[in-house]
Amino acid sequence: MSVRVAVAGASGYAGGELLRLLLAHPGVEIGALTGNSNAGQRLGSLQPHLAPLAERVLEPTTAEVLAGQDRPHDVVFLALPHGQSAAVAEQLGPDVLVVDMGADHRLADAADWEAFYGSQHAGTWPYGLPELPGGRAALEGSKRIAVPGCYPTAVSLALFPAYTAGLAEPEAVIVAASGTSGAGKAAKPHLLGSEVMGSMSPYGVGGGHRHTPEMIQNLSAAAGERVTVSFTPTLAPMPRGILATCTAKARPGVTAAAVRTAYEKAFADEPFVRLLPEGQWPATASVYGSNAVQVQVAYDQAAGRIIAISAIDNLTKGTAGGALQSMNIALGLDESTGLTTIGVAP
Amino acid sequence: MSVRVAVAGASGYAGGELLRLLLAHPGVEIGALTGNSNAGQRLGSLQPHLAPLAERVLEPTTAEVLAGQDRPHDVVFLALPHGQSAAVAEQLGPDVLVVDMGADHRLADAADWEAFYGSQHAGTWPYGLPELPGGRAALEGSKRIAVPGCYPTAVSLALFPAYTAGLAEPEAVIVAASGTSGAGKAAKPHLLGSEVMGSMSPYGVGGGHRHTPEMIQNLSAAAGERVTVSFTPTLAPMPRGILATCTAKARPGVTAAAVRTAYEKAFADEPFVRLLPEGQWPATASVYGSNAVQVQVAYDQAAGRIIAISAIDNLTKGTAGGALQSMNIALGLDESTGLTTIGVAP
Amino acid sequence: MSVRVAVAGASGYAGGELLRLLLAHPGVEIGALTGNSNAGQRLGSLQPHLAPLAERVLEPTTAEVLAGQDRPHDVVFLALPHGQSAAVAEQLGPDVLVVDMGADHRLADAADWEAFYGSQHAGTWPYGLPELPGGRAALEGSKRIAVPGCYPTAVSLALFPAYTAGLAEPEAVIVAASGTSGAGKAAKPHLLGSEVMGSMSPYGVGGGHRHTPEMIQNLSAAAGERVTVSFTPTLAPMPRGILATCTAKARPGVTAAAVRTAYEKAFADEPFVRLLPEGQWPATASVYGSNAVQVQVAYDQAAGRIIAISAIDNLTKGTAGGALQSMNIALGLDESTGLTTIGVAP
Amino acid sequence: MSVRVAVAGASGYAGGELLRLLLAHPGVEIGALTGNSNAGQRLGSLQPHLAPLAERVLEPTTAEVLAGQDRPHDVVFLALPHGQSAAVAEQLGPDVLVVDMGADHRLADAADWEAFYGSQHAGTWPYGLPELPGGRAALEGSKRIAVPGCYPTAVSLALFPAYTAGLAEPEAVIVAASGTSGAGKAAKPHLLGSEVMGSMSPYGVGGGHRHTPEMIQNLSAAAGERVTVSFTPTLAPMPRGILATCTAKARPGVTAAAVRTAYEKAFADEPFVRLLPEGQWPATASVYGSNAVQVQVAYDQAAGRIIAISAIDNLTKGTAGGALQSMNIALGLDESTGLTTIGVAP
Repeated sequence: MSVRVAVAGASGYAGGELLRLLLAHPGVEIGALTGNSNAGQRLGSLQPHLAPLAERVLEPTTAEVLAGQDRPHDVVFLALPHGQSAAVAEQLGPDVLVVDMGADHRLADAADWEAFYGSQHAGTWPYGLPELPGGRAALEGSKRIAVPGCYPTAVSLALFPAYTAGLAEPEAVIVAASGTSGAGKAAKPHLLGSEVMGSMSPYGVGGGHRHTPEMIQNLSAAAGERVTVSFTPTLAPMPRGILATCTAKARPGVTAAAVRTAYEKAFADEPFVRLLPEGQWPATASVYGSNAVQVQVAYDQAAGRIIAISAIDNLTKGTAGGALQSMNIALGLDESTGLTTIGVAP
Repeated sequence: MSVRVAVAGASGYAGGELLRLLLAHPGVEIGALTGNSNAGQRLGSLQPHLAPLAERVLEPTTAEVLAGQDRPHDVVFLALPHGQSAAVAEQLGPDVLVVDMGADHRLADAADWEAFYGSQHAGTWPYGLPELPGGRAALEGSKRIAVPGCYPTAVSLALFPAYTAGLAEPEAVIVAASGTSGAGKAAKPHLLGSEVMGSMSPYGVGGGHRHTPEMIQNLSAAAGERVTVSFTPTLAPMPRGILATCTAKARPGVTAAAVRTAYEKAFADEPFVRLLPEGQWPATASVYGSNAVQVQVAYDQAAGRIIAISAIDNLTKGTAGGALQSMNIALGLDESTGLTTIGVAP
Repeated sequence: MSVRVAVAGASGYAGGELLRLLLAHPGVEIGALTGNSNAGQRLGSLQPHLAPLAERVLEPTTAEVLAGQDRPHDVVFLALPHGQSAAVAEQLGPDVLVVDMGADHRLADAADWEAFYGSQHAGTWPYGLPELPGGRAALEGSKRIAVPGCYPTAVSLALFPAYTAGLAEPEAVIVAASGTSGAGKAAKPHLLGSEVMGSMSPYGVGGGHRHTPEMIQNLSAAAGERVTVSFTPTLAPMPRGILATCTAKARPGVTAAAVRTAYEKAFADEPFVRLLPEGQWPATASVYGSNAVQVQVAYDQAAGRIIAISAIDNLTKGTAGGALQSMNIALGLDESTGLTTIGVAP
Repeated sequence: MSVRVAVAGASGYAGGELLRLLLAHPGVEIGALTGNSNAGQRLGSLQPHLAPLAERVLEPTTAEVLAGQDRPHDVVFLALPHGQSAAVAEQLGPDVLVVDMGADHRLADAADWEAFYGSQHAGTWPYGLPELPGGRAALEGSKRIAVPGCYPTAVSLALFPAYTAGLAEPEAVIVAASGTSGAGKAAKPHLLGSEVMGSMSPYGVGGGHRHTPEMIQNLSAAAGERVTVSFTPTLAPMPRGILATCTAKARPGVTAAAVRTAYEKAFADEPFVRLLPEGQWPATASVYGSNAVQVQVAYDQAAGRIIAISAIDNLTKGTAGGALQSMNIALGLDESTGLTTIGVAP
């Protein structure tokens, strides 16, 4: 018995990645696919890698189409620009599972939302990062899911064990490199191949990136106190992947062994997160196209800091894979259905 | 009921790709994994993307290990350097399906083998390119399979329909670009990232590439006469993918419509080859990590030539995927089991 | 004593590369810089690599600005979209050297222009490829120069010696790979870094590329008869560089030695073209950022074809460097002034 | 009047870049070029981008060759593996300017050297980073120069103004991304193009990187107290460039205006360092192939940290350009001779 799924925003990178994963999910039937400016076009011309869906035609993103007209959808994924999910979601019934891959329902603090997104806060939904403490319980049976941002996924998973174990001071310093697909498919000059190949560059420096309050929210919850975050994202010359280098001052008395133990404990039973053997470090190539998270941690005694590094695929675990994993939990399916820990490398 | 599979050469790119695919194949149990210089090492340190096999330890490549000692293997894949398969294969029993991913058993002409590989010809096995005329029949029930080279796969699929339909003169001119994984994992200075990023360069120009006689063999079989091949391979700054631009002078009276019809007919029932809609051209990104082949063809009236272009993933359809597809046929399984036409993009 | 130079289209890739070279030219003073949609902006925000010009502000592209108002310009470079140069050039006086980096004045055949560009032919100017037979003489003292297209530069230099020496049949088959800067700086979805990294793809297949008639023109002039050209351009995942693989059937009696001799003779005194030692092949990385052309040629006896391969930097020798080289000749300066044969590698 | 220059290690990336720059230096004559395993080979086969030196043959790296036999060298550059410079340098006379591009003479603290390099300390030479306080004076007239490491160059320039102005706490947290040429030309599997393209990965995490004590040395000198450094280097999929993201907790009372003023003052008269206009951030592409340093700084009030980011070309300003700039100063030449601030972009 399949669940019937609609995808809003099927022409973008997040929507395309979700469709790639849904095609491999044995319990899913793909229903309506919608786009805005691309409505009426064949998917084959927009997402030529999705061969089985090449003849599908995009419909307009309306509540009627997403509800499913003749045959209702059980699940609706919203891969829409930030600020557009809430209006659509409000028109969908309470029995439909709505998975918002945008930012609209991630933040608990309305003031944070307004400061970083400049519009009215739409409310807070259960947060789709099951690996966080209490994360799975919040999703089971839920009809609304807010999928985390890609950077907060990588950063929160790298650093929460240090905070839940009380090993780190509440001041995190994070530098992350992302592949260009994280910036989306809208054609902008600074995202041209000619500009990004051979170049590393930062953006949103100094606290301006919209994912900062989401990291603060997650790490503060783990720490049980307000954690400040210095976050610098950089654009790397690769299509996919996030490498997040996350550091925090170690609390007095911390040892390398204590750090290792905390991380081993945090990820012991996680199907997608792998704490690498000591001495091996994450690489984004190893998780390319997969839902896997590679984590490694070190304690730098001379500098007095814990350094935790994670690698994810920003489109998979960072967006569409995380969304599907959360859907599985919400629907009571095996959490790993349709997802893999095996990267496409080299 | 699973078939039990061994992989010789599990630490290389071809072996790693095969394992990636085997892990997703529902009818396979992965048995012994062997390496030469890497015997005794954990696979997790050599192929960090293959998370489920991280704790596996490589065994030495011997006939005993590959036969399977306590529990015999049903299938043995040989991902060994050219010239090393034959000696191993001879020691494996006639009931084991041996799939040679090296070159040793591809060529029918012993003189060609000796001219291009410089050693004694080991014999000719059924050829693992089911899409060629008569290709599937040759593989059904076979216990020995010679997996085609990556370039011959891309080139033969792009051009054989023009020859079987009698549309092209027997002189093909081919220029192909390959990702660097086609050159293998052995560390050589010219394959360093610093050298290949930002650079295109040819190699084996003027007929010297070892895949040339294999192309001639396939195209001549399709044409029913000797086809000469001018083949220029180039190294492209990407890890995976082959884009093969294949041209041949059109026979008198050829029309664009006749060309289109020949290609539509050749690929109408193929599960992995897709003739793109007119006006859309192949891109290696669209088939990344998949067993799909994208093909497009044009008739350039002014130049009097047919131009057929194909895109494949050199490690998947070009090597390990083609090997698995052929194994499926030989064993009587559904040809597509464990394989996908969906690329990982962007 | 400096010549005073204006650049129309200073915000694009061709204009930026020209400015990079002009800054290193000892006999040039940089006058007005113009743009269209970018007029009024600081160059530092548009071309951040041109540090010495960071505070310059773009002016609108008008005949008055380009003429030079208070202080007349001696040279005006037009780096404008195809079809826009002619109207501007007509308003500039006969004593100003006008160097058109667009296509408007390249083709001798008005019918070709109209077929490929769809507008009225603006006339034919001396052609800025001094290495062609008679090329320098045509430029000396000229007040109008048509800079060749990037592909025709690479292809004509690779193949003309075979034709001038009577070694090749008049049917050329050419496949070239270009870096993405050849497609310009206008933001289009298929040129996004996410799309091009990791991908090779063809375009303009089957004779449709606008550079085809220009190649035919050059090769036919060298051959003394009409040469047909099958030209397939491909987009490669690198910012700069063209690798052109050019083949033609050898005339009866041709030998490898005769081919080598013809090429040695053609390039013996050329400051920018280097016929590599036998066995060494061109690589675009070796000419990155330079005006150098690397050429190698082979005779494939089995296929009966001559294969000539060239590597250039599409923005330097392929556009701005070629323009500057031609300007030097037209003004009677040393041809190499401000230009280098040294690439930036790795 | 030219200075006669020898280069030891001419076949590597540092040596090759130095030769590229020396060829453009008007006051230099290139003398002996040496290599170890490559002695006897043509430079054209090892460094094909250095066209004017293609026919030069590498000599063995001996004191006699470097001294200059018949015609003495005025300057000897040592681009040798770490730990090999000292033995060679000892044999060169006191009147020869010896510029060590390796690490041997950078560190003032012998214990640091022994801890990080595992051999005996060879002594400390004047440090080739003229932009540091007192940097130029130390180099003027010197006959020995220790060229800084590439990471310390990027990091020290980004962060010293915050310390000299007393704005930052003595605990720096640094994450830097480097192009692969920083890892040298020796063929190692993890540096293959297949491995690095599409991947970001860290190395030397937790204080283990040999450049850490050099950063501590420079920043402590600027601060007037011991500065701890948490340094995480990452390998980025590009041939060249370093982007260094450097943060430190702001001292109480610091304001954004004070930070800006300190940086403006520090770089006001520097020919190669450019503090970008507010809102514009460094990109490695902008300094590709140049000796320029782009710097930008922000004060993140919410996190209480100063974030200073620099971009350099690791081979130019980070190695060979820095070496040449220091040579110019030592010899009393104009500091910028043979060097440019103009990057090769896109």
